[in-house]
Amino acid sequence: MERRIVSAIEVAKLANVSQSTVSRVFTPGASVSEKTRKKVMKAAEELKYQPNALARGLITKKTNMIGLAMKDIQNPFYHEVLGLFTRKLKEKGYSVLFVYTENEEIQQEEINHFLEYNVEAIIVTDALLSSNVVTRLTANNIPVILFNRHDKELMCHSVVCDNVNAAKRIGSYVYGQGVRDAVFITGKVNTSTSRDRQNGFIDFFRDKDTDITILEGDYTYEKSFHLTRNMIQKGHIPEVIFGANDITALGALDALKECKVEIPKKTMVIGFDDIKMSSWPNYSLSTWAQPINEMVEKAIDLVTLKDRIQEPELIKLEGKFIHRATTK
Amino acid sequence: MERRIVSAIEVAKLANVSQSTVSRVFTPGASVSEKTRKKVMKAAEELKYQPNALARGLITKKTNMIGLAMKDIQNPFYHEVLGLFTRKLKEKGYSVLFVYTENEEIQQEEINHFLEYNVEAIIVTDALLSSNVVTRLTANNIPVILFNRHDKELMCHSVVCDNVNAAKRIGSYVYGQGVRDAVFITGKVNTSTSRDRQNGFIDFFRDKDTDITILEGDYTYEKSFHLTRNMIQKGHIPEVIFGANDITALGALDALKECKVEIPKKTMVIGFDDIKMSSWPNYSLSTWAQPINEMVEKAIDLVTLKDRIQEPELIKLEGKFIHRATTK
Repeated sequence: MERRIVSAIEVAKLANVSQSTVSRVFTPGASVSEKTRKKVMKAAEELKYQPNALARGLITKKTNMIGLAMKDIQNPFYHEVLGLFTRKLKEKGYSVLFVYTENEEIQQEEINHFLEYNVEAIIVTDALLSSNVVTRLTANNIPVILFNRHDKELMCHSVVCDNVNAAKRIGSYVYGQGVRDAVFITGKVNTSTSRDRQNGFIDFFRDKDTDITILEGDYTYEKSFHLTRNMIQKGHIPEVIFGANDITALGALDALKECKVEIPKKTMVIGFDDIKMSSWPNYSLSTWAQPINEMVEKAIDLVTLKDRIQEPELIKLEGKFIHRATTK
Repeated sequence: MERRIVSAIEVAKLANVSQSTVSRVFTPGASVSEKTRKKVMKAAEELKYQPNALARGLITKKTNMIGLAMKDIQNPFYHEVLGLFTRKLKEKGYSVLFVYTENEEIQQEEINHFLEYNVEAIIVTDALLSSNVVTRLTANNIPVILFNRHDKELMCHSVVCDNVNAAKRIGSYVYGQGVRDAVFITGKVNTSTSRDRQNGFIDFFRDKDTDITILEGDYTYEKSFHLTRNMIQKGHIPEVIFGANDITALGALDALKECKVEIPKKTMVIGFDDIKMSSWPNYSLSTWAQPINEMVEKAIDLVTLKDRIQEPELIKLEGKFIHRATTK
């Protein structure tokens, strides 16, 4: 059965207005008098008119679609982020065109999707874009917002938690608890989140003339679990393990428990993100909570600003430390 | 800076072909001779032409967009599902328009999004649609596929794991282990997944003239944890707890551990889904693995079939039981 598409022209005729008036009535945010809106809606209802966003997108050059590129769907942190983005964008009248990428650096062909549909902005979580991709998007007047990542070489906005400062404060806290033998398990080393957290932690201890041990993780539970277990089996039981994110910390925590290390008495464990699982009684993981509500809102503000800010902005938000059972 | 949009007309001129030929070159699946394709691509490359899917969608009535409505982003099962859908759809040339719903029954206004963008099909995971919504979509010739849900009153295709049979087999297994005191913790009771698993489990034990205890969960860890802890504190330690999904089972497992119940010796625990967390050493949860790879592929087949099957199909796939440390 072919779709019987009622056109805006028919609605305009019935309502006795112009076609562009009809278009305005169905464009979120466009200004139309209440009287006109009622007239048009009445006609549309009678004819069962379905506004065509494709057509509107061509005419007005506004599609109300935002491209959202997400990597690492496995990490619960990004599930919460995805839920917040889609809900808050929806409240503002936007649809989400979703691309799942497996690359740390998003390539041209993945972005083509977004370009073909004339998205109004692109939000990239947990990944970067190659600089020629950014250049092309900027040339097309499409703002790009990096979420939970930043890179000063790229002409993009970024919204992040102040990872460096948070890691310093974590360093300060454990040092205050008497820790002189700390281990940091990295995430993927080529990500700004892992680098910033590592640098903040190292910087703090360097100022205290104290060395720390760095183990190279990859943001997975499994790697962290094995690194920790190996370390303990070789006889090194540190006073604290700081994991680059909660998933990393949970892997370390389970390895310590398997090796019967008393937590937090012998070894404290700290994560980063405050995913839901961290509050499960069995884990009760101390962690740094990223202010994701606020981060998502700032990112959306950057997308929806009337006067597009041309200079790339780096917005850093604070978050807070959550004490649970894995710290003293 | 205004976007300088190169039109298909300009490409056609330069390549010395018709505009509809240009359109066919950029439409996935459309047939075009290799010689023509090269000519057009060369011209497009020179002019830096960006195919406009909006325009193509209007002209061809095919947008290559699939609407994906998802609820319950918290459950790791759906993260894996989302990743599979977006990846496999992308391989077939489709984009995903993503809607996150908070309603158990998706309403008209959420579907309007999809209609406005002329999506070619809608896949709904973990939720139902109201029947008037389904009727409207069918009238617009848009197939709807329910994933991990079914409802015979709705004219939709469904792809599910055979939950009833799986639950019977779990019943059979534990009965064979000597269990006569079993507890089932439900998910959300108005979902077909929870109902089917409960019915399969109950049916098995009814045939053996054995009662089982049903506790009403809601697919969250927290509810299951509290139900289990209360039950144990009141003195009832069952021989098995079967949770309607893994998240439910993990809540029960942690409560049992907190109450120092020996697992699996005193109480076995079984979940459903086989999310990643279930294989973490600390949990090592026995569970029924849904064949999600196959389920996603079947759902996509239903979307992409050339001859649209009009009769709603219910596709049930099997999966398998995974023994880990929480069963004997």
